[in-house]
Order: sequence, then structure tokens, then C-alpha cells
Amino acid sequence: MSRVTTSVVEQLSPESLSVVRRAIGGAPDSWALDEIGDGNVNLIFRLSGPSGQVLVKQAVPYLRCVGESWPLSVRRNYFEYKALEAHATVAAEYLPRVLAFDEASAAMVMEFLGDHVILRKGVMQGIRYPRFSEHITDYMAQTLFFTSDLFLSAGEKKQKMKLFCENVDLCKITEDLIFTDPYRVAETNRWTTPQLDSLAHAFATDPELKVAITELKAKFLTACEALIHGDLHSGSIMVNQEATKVIDPEFAYYGPMGFDVGLLLANFFLGYFSQAGLACNPPEYEAWLLEQVEQIWSKFERKFCALWDQHLEGDYLPARLLTGDSRAARAAIVSRVRSDYMARLFDDSLGFAASEMIRRVLGLAHVADLDNIADPDQRALCEARALRAARELLLNHRKYTGIMPVLAMVREERARPAP
Amino acid sequence: MSRVTTSVVEQLSPESLSVVRRAIGGAPDSWALDEIGDGNVNLIFRLSGPSGQVLVKQAVPYLRCVGESWPLSVRRNYFEYKALEAHATVAAEYLPRVLAFDEASAAMVMEFLGDHVILRKGVMQGIRYPRFSEHITDYMAQTLFFTSDLFLSAGEKKQKMKLFCENVDLCKITEDLIFTDPYRVAETNRWTTPQLDSLAHAFATDPELKVAITELKAKFLTACEALIHGDLHSGSIMVNQEATKVIDPEFAYYGPMGFDVGLLLANFFLGYFSQAGLACNPPEYEAWLLEQVEQIWSKFERKFCALWDQHLEGDYLPARLLTGDSRAARAAIVSRVRSDYMARLFDDSLGFAASEMIRRVLGLAHVADLDNIADPDQRALCEARALRAARELLLNHRKYTGIMPVLAMVREERARPAP
Repeated sequence: MSRVTTSVVEQLSPESLSVVRRAIGGAPDSWALDEIGDGNVNLIFRLSGPSGQVLVKQAVPYLRCVGESWPLSVRRNYFEYKALEAHATVAAEYLPRVLAFDEASAAMVMEFLGDHVILRKGVMQGIRYPRFSEHITDYMAQTLFFTSDLFLSAGEKKQKMKLFCENVDLCKITEDLIFTDPYRVAETNRWTTPQLDSLAHAFATDPELKVAITELKAKFLTACEALIHGDLHSGSIMVNQEATKVIDPEFAYYGPMGFDVGLLLANFFLGYFSQAGLACNPPEYEAWLLEQVEQIWSKFERKFCALWDQHLEGDYLPARLLTGDSRAARAAIVSRVRSDYMARLFDDSLGFAASEMIRRVLGLAHVADLDNIADPDQRALCEARALRAARELLLNHRKYTGIMPVLAMVREERARPAP
Repeated sequence: MSRVTTSVVEQLSPESLSVVRRAIGGAPDSWALDEIGDGNVNLIFRLSGPSGQVLVKQAVPYLRCVGESWPLSVRRNYFEYKALEAHATVAAEYLPRVLAFDEASAAMVMEFLGDHVILRKGVMQGIRYPRFSEHITDYMAQTLFFTSDLFLSAGEKKQKMKLFCENVDLCKITEDLIFTDPYRVAETNRWTTPQLDSLAHAFATDPELKVAITELKAKFLTACEALIHGDLHSGSIMVNQEATKVIDPEFAYYGPMGFDVGLLLANFFLGYFSQAGLACNPPEYEAWLLEQVEQIWSKFERKFCALWDQHLEGDYLPARLLTGDSRAARAAIVSRVRSDYMARLFDDSLGFAASEMIRRVLGLAHVADLDNIADPDQRALCEARALRAARELLLNHRKYTGIMPVLAMVREERARPAP
């Protein structure tokens, strides 16, 4: 990779270089460049100078984890930049600072989060993050509420949405890898073989699952609710004991809010089902992970509803619809609309959570939580439990009206003995 | 209006003028210009020359039926032009031909449909149009299917959608006049007074209706399903015994398909409820109007499903999801997804139909069918019947799973005696 690694600094514009110089000191020939990325999509570098470090994220014209056979526009970095910019207006504290966006080289220079780790790695090591559920629910409630019709006028929303109508390459990856491939016989699918062969085959030929996943995909294609992150798994979140940062919103577009909430929940479920196979953490850690699921949903719901009560300024439910009503009538109407909204959002979140769990076991891109279980029999057992819970959720998400019954079902699947 | 009427020809670009010259012959000083519009939004002229006529539609920077106090961007003509262009690729036979779009003067030069009348006028006169239901269902099935994710890739759809994200002024009119004002005390509302005062007050203060209309508005704001006409009432359709032309798609944007279907059905219901008050047509004409409703839904459904069977080429349900399945399994899956889709579309259509009926009796913009009933008691009786049917549909659209029970309910409301 030396050609690439040496060239990223040379490719930066003079303006970007001077920003970097101010941030890390010294001259370019004194800087150390290390490729540190292990992501699926981009090249990630740490650039170190005498007085500091920055992160440089550069898009290559293909999907990094597959190679040049999967071309991908480098413009995705631009959408990531615009999403960070939009989300920073309402949730800056949970985002890395962007120092420069260098369009010509498709590179973004950002704050280097040296004192954070990827949440997934922390979870695999059994680390607890006591402030995480507060932070991530702030982030989700604020980014989703304030970019939606609940807060914005329809015109403002469409003005913002317009740009992200162009972010089609990355949405296409989701459409294929989450909503299509795991439910068909596809060369790109992979799974723990031969242990999961029959389950994978069953998922690839199950009419009920195909109908259910198509309904969710329809929401992904048509429900323009908010500027969502679009890839909010535990590899897109950096944490430590004090802070939380959400990174990598290159999949951002105007889509269904439940997609963000669902992916996050799914990754905690995947972390949970992995623990038995990883077998390196105390058993109480499983309970902590499920507790996070409960906390994430309940805090998100509470914060989202609080924003609703304070900032319902958009065209969704304009105050003037209620001008003639008594205070009690107004409260009853808002409360009813809000609870219908939250019920639908919860339902969507469960459906999308199921789709993420399934694709992480049967699709192209897996999660390290499961992949790192060395014994394939143990891994397959954990994966089969996750798949069964996900199948139940995908087919029956409408039947779950609260998070506690979901947790009960997940615990029940976790307790299944090896076949 | 002479300043305006003389200036529209002078405002046309040389290119547009030469198009007009080819169409109608002669020189500009030999042309006769008549303002013929009675629409709510634009100025409409007939321009006649020695060898023909064209229609010139010019946007003014305000809502014509209200005046300069309601400013409105003239760019709406551009969206109308782009919608006509998009729809003409799939349903040209049901659209007026556009000869020139003159952006500088916000004027569009179009085929003059001298041998057509506005459908609403024909319905008020009791005229039957034997080919209408075939034509309008061709138009709706083709424009809605081929601009949706059923036919297009997600990227193609978003590319088309992007432009219409800017058509916010006219969507705002719908958001206010259909989804907000009739359900609140608003100065812009009007109704037959004093006969409907108590019904109008009841609608303006009904919590159930506010909740139900908000759910429909949410679809209007977020469901980006297809490039809809956006204002498909019987004043936007020109007909004769042989042909049907859909005009005025300036409200076009990517929205819920059911909005087009629903507005059309609603205007037939309004025509139906008007007949008793107009009292100028044979009683069998009422049955013909309800027969049209039945025909419109059933033919639309049949044609839309036929397009589904022949042209399901979009990302909604890609063929590759079904590659591993037997022919029988494939057919079962497609059929199940399709029938869920049509059930939802029917339900949406009924809800939007209800919202159109209500706003045409209690909101700012009424329909001539009802307004032309001279006796206010008779008019109020017809309007009250329409309102009660609409209220039932708005609150209970989910309970109607076929068009026949809807017609039965409508007939029952029609039979209600004067209070």
C-alpha cells in the first residue's frame, strides 16, 4: 500500500495542508503517515506531526473489502462530510470534528480520536461503558428528530433531502447486502459451513422471509423520514468511559428512522449471542448487554418524546391545527399522535434489527463478535441462536409492543442447547 | 387584464415565438389572444392564428384565486413541464402536447384542446364518457407504476425525485388546504352558512379527525413512492367521447400513489352527492357516477397488477431475490407481495379521497358541482351527506377492504333525509 500511503498527503490541496499543519505542527516531510483502517469501505490514515495527530479518511473508487471488482464512487466522502455537517448542528458533541474536506482527493481530515476505541472491540472484551446509552440516545434522538418533518418545514426538509438523493451507491450496498442477498442463493453470501448449511439454505428459500424483507426494503426505498446515519452498527461508534463518537455516516440519506435504531439494537443482540462462544468475559456481561438494549430503547423513546414536546415546530403536526382546541384536547391529540408514531418507529426498529442480524450471519459482511469465535461448532451455535431470534423478529415484529418481551424472546433463544 | 394579456406574446422568446408561428401561422400582429382560464392558479390564454390555435399557460407570482397576498413562485410551471415530460414517456396519449417551455416568461405553449371539455363540467351536465374509465386508469397505472421503485432502480428513482424536491410551494398549498385548515378554525375556510355551521365547527374541533388527518399528512410528507400528478381532481381532466387528457400537473412530486387515486375517486363522489341538488340530470346518472368509481378502482387495480407482472424491473422486488425458487414459489411470493401492496394502496386511496371530499366542502377551494346548487338548503343537504361519508372513510378507511362496501356506505349516506 506504500504508493497509496505516500500519496495521500501529496494529494491534499494547499488549503487542506495548511489546516493539517496548524493541527499537527511541522512540515509535511516531518510527518508520519500510518494506514490504520480496517473498515470495509475506505482507506484510513493517521497523520502524526510534532504537536498532534489527525485522521485522514480517503475514498478509493471501489469497495475496499471486496476490491476493484466492486466499483464505488469516491463521492461518498462528500455525502459523509455533508451528513457530519448536518448532524453537527444538533449533536456535535457525539461527532468527530471535521478539519477539512478535500474534494479533489476524496479525502477528509478529521480529529484523531486516539483515546477512543471502536465499541465492537470493547464489547468483545467485556468492557462496560456506563455513559454510552445516554450518549447514543442523545445522538439518535437529536439527529433523527431535528432532520425530520417533526421539526422542519416540508420545504426545509426537502431542501436538505435533495442532496442525499444522489447518495445512491451506498444505499445500493444496503439494498443488496441487507435486503436481498441473505434471502437468496448468492455467491457473495458466506456462513459457518457446514454447520449452518441447512439454516442458510432455509433462509435463502423461505417465502415468508422474502415477503417480510420486501416490506422492510420498501420502507428503506420510500420512507423519507429523517437524515439517518445509515450504518449505525457498533463498528461505527467510538467510545471510552467518558465519551461517545459516531463515525462513518457515508451511508447517510433521508430514510426511515427505525433503520438507525434497529441496526444499533441488532449489534447489541449480536454482541450478546457472541458472548457464549467468545467465552472470555464474565457471565454478567451478557446481562449488561441486554440491559443496554432496554436502556437504548427506553432512553431514546423518552428523549425523542421530550423533543416532540419542546420542539414540534415542523409541518408534521403544526400548532395551528390545534389552535381552536382546549389545552386538554391539544394534549390528548399530541399524545395520541406521538404514541402512534413511537409504536410504528419501534416496530420498524425491530424489523430492521432483524434484517441486520441475519445479514451479519449469512451475508457478505460479518461482525468480528461472531467471526472471532475460534471453534466453528461454538460459533455456529451462537449464530444459529441469533438467526432464530432474528427470524422471529422479522416475521413477527408487529406482535412486540414493548422491549421487554423482545428481551425475553432473545433470552429464550440464547438458552437453546446445541442441536 | 389587458396589460397582462397583451404582454404574454411579447414576453415569449424568439424560439418560442417561432414554435408558435409554425403551429398557428401568420405573424404575431395577426394573432388573437383570449384569456380563457378560470383555474385557481395560473393565467390561461388561447392564442389563435390563421392556421390554428395554441394554449399559453403563464404563471403569475401569486395564487390566482386569492391574489397577490398569497405569493407563489412562478417556477411551478417548470415543474409542470418536467412532470409532463416525465409522464409523456409512459402515457403520452393522455397528456396535452407541450410545444415550448419559455422559462423567462414562466409560460408554456401547449396543444389547444378545443374539442375537449373539463370533466367536471361534463359531469355537472350529466354527460357520460364511455371511454373515460379505461383512459384514466391507463394513465394512473402507467404514470404511477413506471415512476416507482417497482420499475426503476433506486438510483434512477432518486435521480428523478431530486428535481421535484424543489417543488415545495405547491405541496405547501396541499399541506395547508387539504391536511390542515378544514380541521381547525381558519379564516380561509368557507362553507354553506348557516346550514353547515355546526358540522363545520364539529369538524374543526374533532380530535379523532385531527389524529386521522395527521396520519395521512405524514404519508404525503414522507412516502416517496412515485411521481404523482398531485392534483388529480375532475377539473384537471379534459374529456370528450373519444379521448381523455390529464392537464395541470404543477403539483407533481414524489409522493404517495394513493393521493392521485383518492382525489379522482373523491371527485366522483362529490359529483354523485351533487346530483340531487343540481336536479338537472336523469336519476340514472347517479348510478353511472358510482359505476365509474367501481370501474376506476377495479380497472386501475387490474392494470397496475398487469404492469407488475410484466415490468417488475425495479429494486422493489428484484428478480434475483427469487432465483433459487421454483416457479410456483416465485409466483406465490410475487402474488403475496403484490396483494399486500394493492391493499395498502387501496387503503391510502380511501383516506386521501376522504380528505379531498372534506376540504371541498369546508376548505378554501370548493368544487363547482356543489357550489352551483343554487338553493342553499339543498346545497347544504348534499354537502352534509358528502361530509358524513367522508368522515366515515377518514376514520375507518382500514375497515374497507373492497370498493363495493364503500359504494354501499356512500349510497346509504346519499339516502339520508334532510335533518
